Amino acid sequence: MQVTQILRQALMEQPDRKGTVYNGRSRTWREIGERVPRMAAALRALGAREGDCVAALAMNSDCYLELFFSIPWCGAAFAPLNIRWSVPENQFALRDSGARILFVDDAFLAEAQTLKGDADLTLIYMGEKQTPEGMLSYEDLMRAHEPIADADRKADDLYIVLYTSGTTLQSKGVALSHRNVISVSVAFLATLPHRDNLTHLHVGGMFHLSGAGPAWYITMSAGTHVILPKFEPVPVMEAITEHKVTNCVLVPTMINMLLNQPTLKQYDLSSVRTCVYGGSPMPEAIMKAAMRDLPTWGFHQIYGMTETAGYATAFKWHEHLIAVERFPERMKSAGRPVVGMQVRIARPDGSEAPVRETGEIQIRGDNVMTRYFNNEKASAESLVNSWMRSGDAGYMDEDGFVYIADRLKDMIVTGGENVYSVDVERALYQHPSVREAAVVGIPSEKWGEAVHAIVVLKDGMSATADELMAHCRSLIGGYKCPRSVEFRSEALPTTPIGKIRKNVLRDAYWQGRTRKI
Amino acid sequence: MQVTQILRQALMEQPDRKGTVYNGRSRTWREIGERVPRMAAALRALGAREGDCVAALAMNSDCYLELFFSIPWCGAAFAPLNIRWSVPENQFALRDSGARILFVDDAFLAEAQTLKGDADLTLIYMGEKQTPEGMLSYEDLMRAHEPIADADRKADDLYIVLYTSGTTLQSKGVALSHRNVISVSVAFLATLPHRDNLTHLHVGGMFHLSGAGPAWYITMSAGTHVILPKFEPVPVMEAITEHKVTNCVLVPTMINMLLNQPTLKQYDLSSVRTCVYGGSPMPEAIMKAAMRDLPTWGFHQIYGMTETAGYATAFKWHEHLIAVERFPERMKSAGRPVVGMQVRIARPDGSEAPVRETGEIQIRGDNVMTRYFNNEKASAESLVNSWMRSGDAGYMDEDGFVYIADRLKDMIVTGGENVYSVDVERALYQHPSVREAAVVGIPSEKWGEAVHAIVVLKDGMSATADELMAHCRSLIGGYKCPRSVEFRSEALPTTPIGKIRKNVLRDAYWQGRTRKI
Repeated sequence: MQVTQILRQALMEQPDRKGTVYNGRSRTWREIGERVPRMAAALRALGAREGDCVAALAMNSDCYLELFFSIPWCGAAFAPLNIRWSVPENQFALRDSGARILFVDDAFLAEAQTLKGDADLTLIYMGEKQTPEGMLSYEDLMRAHEPIADADRKADDLYIVLYTSGTTLQSKGVALSHRNVISVSVAFLATLPHRDNLTHLHVGGMFHLSGAGPAWYITMSAGTHVILPKFEPVPVMEAITEHKVTNCVLVPTMINMLLNQPTLKQYDLSSVRTCVYGGSPMPEAIMKAAMRDLPTWGFHQIYGMTETAGYATAFKWHEHLIAVERFPERMKSAGRPVVGMQVRIARPDGSEAPVRETGEIQIRGDNVMTRYFNNEKASAESLVNSWMRSGDAGYMDEDGFVYIADRLKDMIVTGGENVYSVDVERALYQHPSVREAAVVGIPSEKWGEAVHAIVVLKDGMSATADELMAHCRSLIGGYKCPRSVEFRSEALPTTPIGKIRKNVLRDAYWQGRTRKI
Repeated sequence: MQVTQILRQALMEQPDRKGTVYNGRSRTWREIGERVPRMAAALRALGAREGDCVAALAMNSDCYLELFFSIPWCGAAFAPLNIRWSVPENQFALRDSGARILFVDDAFLAEAQTLKGDADLTLIYMGEKQTPEGMLSYEDLMRAHEPIADADRKADDLYIVLYTSGTTLQSKGVALSHRNVISVSVAFLATLPHRDNLTHLHVGGMFHLSGAGPAWYITMSAGTHVILPKFEPVPVMEAITEHKVTNCVLVPTMINMLLNQPTLKQYDLSSVRTCVYGGSPMPEAIMKAAMRDLPTWGFHQIYGMTETAGYATAFKWHEHLIAVERFPERMKSAGRPVVGMQVRIARPDGSEAPVRETGEIQIRGDNVMTRYFNNEKASAESLVNSWMRSGDAGYMDEDGFVYIADRLKDMIVTGGENVYSVDVERALYQHPSVREAAVVGIPSEKWGEAVHAIVVLKDGMSATADELMAHCRSLIGGYKCPRSVEFRSEALPTTPIGKIRKNVLRDAYWQGRTRKI
């Protein structure tokens, strides 16, 4: 049971179906099935041994998709670098993984050279132009090597190391085994409403699970990958129409952008049946617009993290429809545990919290990572008795729906009350002048912590601290309202996926002190 | 990740849906969710400890279904006894499992008393009448105990021991872990064409995977179990109509019986969408009749064995439809490996056989049993480098379809040629006088082994050995034809599921000698 088996099945089941469509060319599964063992041979010849990591720093492409299979085919593990990270961040990931081979495309030639420096790093060029000096050509390597047999890795062997920044500064490599990836892929197919003849549109980076997940489960269904370099409304609508796309992964803002396209009705988007989204609940207004203008689309919210191979709970489309009609509260939920996964809410003492009590969301099952790579301390802190501590605060209702309240560390304990910073931020965002808002706990002699807001106003708009505090008092409990407001003129610092780095903002107030949470 | 979680999710997702329908009564998942932890408490009070086995010998019922969850809820493992076995056979299974608690119903009261004998065995009566003396009442125990917390077993802990006779004389206990069962259930949901609002009709014994499998995956889908004691055409048609059954597991002979019912058209059987079958390919005539008279039914063939939790390959309905039209050969196949499972054909030296070469079918993946219970020797023989040796001979075509040629031990090596006994039997069955035929290899000075046929003729019909040999020569290669024919007047010995015990027939010829295979 190893990930290469996913590819072998696809090429047995649908040898003549298009496996990848990218940049005006397409390849059948049979062709991909011939290319992968050749690239595996090249990697072996270049010195990749069982258990070594092989890295990539590139935009999505058909070649990138092949790496998910060629690297384990030669027995190595994949370490994708983050296309949004700085050179020092990727430098850390590259060194931590120990990779001595790096795949690179046209977008990252300079960065790859910097990463290489004086190090013993082989660069394999998988771009669309002339192979730069000092690099090997992906296609030449493929042609120069005869296919080798699958290294036939075992279920518990390392398959991939995904480096996450999350909201902490120190990035960590999440080590996923072959079993983790097979398990999450089967779970996806078991929960998706349609599984036959899938054509997936990739707009999310494959270096991240939002792109890597479909790379596995769509291949497992012997479907087709239509690959775009990034999300742009018109190319997305064109690709859906041209390739009769059935599946995609989009965040609610992207869905909203599509719905606001004046040319939306000129495209036939009715082939789409499943749109997976994550990161936040679906705003009801977007959902209603989608039901009107994209009536064939079913939306499937997922909650998970890299540590759970991207999947832990699912809020299915029919559950959305029931929720809108009868249980509006559920529209804020992240759905219920997916088949084969177990989710619980834990109290600080480790016991299970009762229904509707907020605690830490913990996850168990075969999707859960084996460990953090090279980081026993973080592994031991995160995996307790096979439960993965998500670091997210949340609660579960009587029907098993999970609600994510806040990152646990973003919770503020003030005067003995717990304040979830998102509640306060949501209130601030409702003020017409607020563009960005982050709420953190800062030291307070009187309250232990005090609720503090950091706000960026919209261009040309104004508001005073008193106004904003009064605005909050009109919407949320007094103890939750900011005691102080700080205005900034520049955008707040964010993680690569756009989350505000509240820990960075908060840490400035805690120099030389220790927070209790 | 443990099997009790399947129940917990069902009762969170569909608390008010009927979980079980049996003998005129039904219970919701909420009710079942309240009963199971009480029965677990009773088992604990009766001395069941973590890892102990608890046995049952009973026909299907709603209570039987509860055992799949109450036994692991108290931390024990389930050891269902075989309702078709003799007392000594079940005596062996009971002793081997070490169970000291046995659930029993009205059908097995006398056998249970015999099994108990002087042993320290607690009998729990889950029948419909007065509790017999010396037994405890299932319902009384439930009422007398307060619910306990789930024992929270781990993924690799033992969940169930299923005793198989297979075609060998010495029965073995197949030890399945929680992971095995979760994994096979998710794989079922990932391959079934429909997964929402499932209502399953149980006619196959739950002591066996054909009943136990749906007990898990239908519960995982939060569906309904409609439970009949056995297959009879009219009650089956009535139950489908009354309960709007969507799913069932039937063997082709049962499907054929339904199709031949003169009253078939008086029932509304259109709620059925998926009929899982196994044991043999679907005869084309039955398939065509089903397409005409049961047009909503999709047929899904599975191949597997107890050692793979019942599932290894699947031949899906749309694949049947394509096969009938374009690839008639595939109608004889058992389909392709299911998601997450790996199947290969191995040569005697352990290497992988090329396409269309017959070898041993071997299976790998999380469905594969952890071991045989209390039988290290058999475990070591069957599990080689995590591959489960099925003992079945077969081959795979270029599209990954698996064809089961024969039990490996039933293959005859004669004059250096391999003869698959089923080929010869198929020829014999085409003779109008033959009721039963078994072909085995017997010792031969000249050929190593010689092809020998054992035949039972139809009442009032006749045929000579020469006639049958000539008949075979008209259909199959000369080297495959029987060199000798033995006529018997009584039915040939069979396993509980109706397979002829060719090993018993063969062994009579090999007294004091050793077969090479």
